[in-house]
Amino acid sequence: MALHAVILAGGAGERFWPASRNKRPKPFLEVVDGQSLLESTHRRAKRFASPGCVWVVCGRNHAAAIRRETGLPANRVLVEPLRRNTAMAMAWVAQHIAAQDPEGILTVLPSDHRIPDARAFAAAIRKAARAARSARCIVTLGVKPTRPDTGYGYIQVGPPAGRSHPGLRQVKRFVEKPDAAKARSYLRRGGFLWNAGIFVLGARTLLHELEACAPEVHRALAPMARNPRARSGAALLKAYRKAPSLPIDTAVMERSKNVWTLPVAFHWSDVGTWLSLAEELGVAPGESRVLHGELLSDDRGGNLVWGADRPIALLGVEGLAVIDTGDVLLVTNLDRSPDVRGIVADLKKKGRRELT
Amino acid sequence: MALHAVILAGGAGERFWPASRNKRPKPFLEVVDGQSLLESTHRRAKRFASPGCVWVVCGRNHAAAIRRETGLPANRVLVEPLRRNTAMAMAWVAQHIAAQDPEGILTVLPSDHRIPDARAFAAAIRKAARAARSARCIVTLGVKPTRPDTGYGYIQVGPPAGRSHPGLRQVKRFVEKPDAAKARSYLRRGGFLWNAGIFVLGARTLLHELEACAPEVHRALAPMARNPRARSGAALLKAYRKAPSLPIDTAVMERSKNVWTLPVAFHWSDVGTWLSLAEELGVAPGESRVLHGELLSDDRGGNLVWGADRPIALLGVEGLAVIDTGDVLLVTNLDRSPDVRGIVADLKKKGRRELT
Repeated sequence: MALHAVILAGGAGERFWPASRNKRPKPFLEVVDGQSLLESTHRRAKRFASPGCVWVVCGRNHAAAIRRETGLPANRVLVEPLRRNTAMAMAWVAQHIAAQDPEGILTVLPSDHRIPDARAFAAAIRKAARAARSARCIVTLGVKPTRPDTGYGYIQVGPPAGRSHPGLRQVKRFVEKPDAAKARSYLRRGGFLWNAGIFVLGARTLLHELEACAPEVHRALAPMARNPRARSGAALLKAYRKAPSLPIDTAVMERSKNVWTLPVAFHWSDVGTWLSLAEELGVAPGESRVLHGELLSDDRGGNLVWGADRPIALLGVEGLAVIDTGDVLLVTNLDRSPDVRGIVADLKKKGRRELT
Repeated sequence: MALHAVILAGGAGERFWPASRNKRPKPFLEVVDGQSLLESTHRRAKRFASPGCVWVVCGRNHAAAIRRETGLPANRVLVEPLRRNTAMAMAWVAQHIAAQDPEGILTVLPSDHRIPDARAFAAAIRKAARAARSARCIVTLGVKPTRPDTGYGYIQVGPPAGRSHPGLRQVKRFVEKPDAAKARSYLRRGGFLWNAGIFVLGARTLLHELEACAPEVHRALAPMARNPRARSGAALLKAYRKAPSLPIDTAVMERSKNVWTLPVAFHWSDVGTWLSLAEELGVAPGESRVLHGELLSDDRGGNLVWGADRPIALLGVEGLAVIDTGDVLLVTNLDRSPDVRGIVADLKKKGRRELT
């Protein structure tokens, strides 16, 4: 009946192109705090997880690097044979852990977020885990918003979850990334939290919820029933081939009646774009930040610079990200940087895989 | 009594940094018309100069490259032992040519301008040469302005030069680069021409004018008097050591009473900055230009791109010059690009000669 940490490291981080690449995606980048986002996440997980209960779910390409970086043993790095989004990843890991720890509680967390206050984070997870265990519910972390961000989904909080769970709230609804006007109204009205995409729930609770809310995902697990602890082989591949590709949010969270949220106020960022990284690093009017390389000159400031083998000089520009990875150079307006995914899509279409 | 073309190739072209460098300055760059600015200038010069009468004046570092590029024999590449600006360069070449062709007429022209209509240019020079020869005056080319440019000096035209020289005008005064309001008023009022820095004058006329207007430059020639055709040696070095560093404009043109101008209407540009190059190349809102390398993506346009070994992606930016020379990268607002000289000055101060 342990508290497990399950780090999802399957994302591509395309909005971090060209630094985030197929071969070395965003979780491996040292962009803040002097360590990779994955390593920070791993350290955070070790704070609250029971001994030997940190897991990573990832794709084939990155398993070796993840083991190297985290030092985790092979049996706790679950390698998905195919990409099937987060619902299937969580389904598999829930079945796998339930087979050895039926009462186990899972904390599922992305590998590429930033939460500097690891102590506050661990305390919140422990509190959420107590609720998840005793009420057999799903608990999502809801971060108190500090600005009308249009890059995050929101949670509208419902009534208190009950006397025995002080601080926890029922979820009234999940809302997709809003436009600027809606985001401002959420902040003004109160009662809206950022959906951090961090879930605390019993392994068996998740399996039950999948059965109820996303039966096609649950059915995909069937080939694994005979040997649920297998980490590879034909049954796993069969299961993944069968599984639909669904995010856990739409497959379960938005459908289940059994979701609570724990409002938290510590600093959190999904470091989702060059713009949000710039904010994390303190880029502001007149203030530039250099992640790598040498900046020779920058008369206006407000820029984010990632240099490679050649020094960079900026003149008369502000609010830019200049990202030189050695094999490709991106110059983007920070505000527009989320659209870098379009460039990646275009490169794929043109068969320029070496650049993606 | 030949018509000589004297190409001044001593400038550093620092406003073209980082493409223009000590080792390979601006005249050597292929930025328009598929050939280097020097090569274009040389072709233009050959159109009007008498056979065997094209000369280049340059510094030690570039003599070999200039001979390679132009195919000129060594005796027509005059290598200055020190840099002493244009007054001394013109003084030396005038003395040198006068020693073999006392009645020779010189057309002195910078090596790094752009004049696409070489035929019209040659016709103008021949006309100016006739006046310079018969009236023993200095003729400057005055380009009819097409916009209120603040990057050029202006010539205010005076009365007609006389019946025997139709089209030629006396010079009322030279004006320094004006501010925007003045430039607009020049264009509105008329009677102002861009000073192209192209002069047509007898070799001996120049020597006389130097004696009158810039006697310290004229005196510096004294050590060469015994052997005015020497192209190197102690006397030349002594002359250059003695010479003040003055531009011909302030040393002679602005002081002499003997300066006429020939108004011309053909397209001319000093290609002085990334901004003016962008204009030459047709960079406009929505229209980018790529000088070298590969541009992967550019959603807004209006940018000037010079790539090296890595492709470049632009997103949400316009009016930029992105110049990657392989060893250094410049990202500048085109409007601010003339200030790139400040970066060069700064690098020199810091001893970063490898980057200048």
